[in-house]
Amino acid sequence: MENVKIVLEYDGTDFYGWQVQPGKRTVQGELEKALLKIFGEKIKVIGSGRTDKGVHALGQVASFFCPQSFDPEELKNALNGNIGRDIFVKECELMPETFNARFSAKSRVYRYQITTEKSVFTRRYFFYIKETLNLENMEKAKEALLGWHNFENLSTKDSGFCELRRLEIQREGKNIFIEVEADRFLRRMVRGIVGLLIAVGEGKIEPEDAEKIIEGQRRRLPIVPPFGLFLLEVKY
Amino acid sequence: MENVKIVLEYDGTDFYGWQVQPGKRTVQGELEKALLKIFGEKIKVIGSGRTDKGVHALGQVASFFCPQSFDPEELKNALNGNIGRDIFVKECELMPETFNARFSAKSRVYRYQITTEKSVFTRRYFFYIKETLNLENMEKAKEALLGWHNFENLSTKDSGFCELRRLEIQREGKNIFIEVEADRFLRRMVRGIVGLLIAVGEGKIEPEDAEKIIEGQRRRLPIVPPFGLFLLEVKY
Repeated sequence: MENVKIVLEYDGTDFYGWQVQPGKRTVQGELEKALLKIFGEKIKVIGSGRTDKGVHALGQVASFFCPQSFDPEELKNALNGNIGRDIFVKECELMPETFNARFSAKSRVYRYQITTEKSVFTRRYFFYIKETLNLENMEKAKEALLGWHNFENLSTKDSGFCELRRLEIQREGKNIFIEVEADRFLRRMVRGIVGLLIAVGEGKIEPEDAEKIIEGQRRRLPIVPPFGLFLLEVKY
Repeated sequence: MENVKIVLEYDGTDFYGWQVQPGKRTVQGELEKALLKIFGEKIKVIGSGRTDKGVHALGQVASFFCPQSFDPEELKNALNGNIGRDIFVKECELMPETFNARFSAKSRVYRYQITTEKSVFTRRYFFYIKETLNLENMEKAKEALLGWHNFENLSTKDSGFCELRRLEIQREGKNIFIEVEADRFLRRMVRGIVGLLIAVGEGKIEPEDAEKIIEGQRRRLPIVPPFGLFLLEVKY
């Protein structure tokens, strides 16, 4: 038995998310189908976390146990030869048997992409908004978000404490990138955080309202759509 | 009768090119369908030129005559509301009746996008090649291409003299962009030029061979695929 770690990217547009679902095309499902073809038996793939329908990844990590030994470079090529063009396995490496893509992860890094310039070429990967956002106010709201909180009021049907370790807001021309890092994220939590920051940037709420929203003293805000979201990196 | 000029972009991936073809989804066809809905009658749209199946545009220009007067900004919005998300009309303007998107054009500018980094996110818009290209040799081949030639040996089933006025090769990290400008281009001529330049960059032919290929003294080279090609601008 070999314990294998892979790093992969995928374009989430045509997937029903990471997790296997009967009758739906999912990233985990496609990887397991490819492994079945390669090894002739069912192998369960463990992801660092589930990405939702439509969410992309540049550095998702997964692990699985293989019944045979093999050269990692050859397995990487075999996987890429047996999956669709919207998944690409970038790295493949043998690990000690205690490694688990989900439980060994120390932190996850996500990026959300926003643009104020409408274009057919960014429509799959950027959330288009008309307004120019007030970044100064967004920076003020940031302070309430960073650190250790129960983020259930910025999540959808999920609850629990997470440590938001980093939140960076950067403008590049007509695009805005929001990067977040935490030990873990609740369901739809990144999209909840970005929804809050955009509401602040558009002047719909004040920077001071961020704390009240986290604490549930104020109504929830709409979350942003999945297609602007990228899982960038998982740290171990 | 109003003579209208529009500037539009489109993601060529899901189109059978510009020109109307029975039973196929084309850019001209989608625009004419939208105009039929808006004005209730068939209006013929003239493009600056036909782009092939899979070729993209950032600044295609088209013109047509409308039976009614209207506000250009409103027509722009009406068009965008009646076409798919992979076409976007950026500008709409009233013109003197002598203007014709095809015959009034003075030059066309195209860009071809190449990358040596494989990624699911560039697969629709970049031609992936393994080799790092020798740009110095490509620059040498450029001299034979610039100027006034019958480009039939770099085209597919087309013939005639064109003036290649500009050819720029630029590296940005792992991407290479080739930009060309000419009074007009023959069928598949840009992809023929880029195919030649890549062959030089890969060392498959010498820079000196470029002239022989144009003159038909040497075998043709494969053309590059359409998805790396963008019509950038049409000048009037």
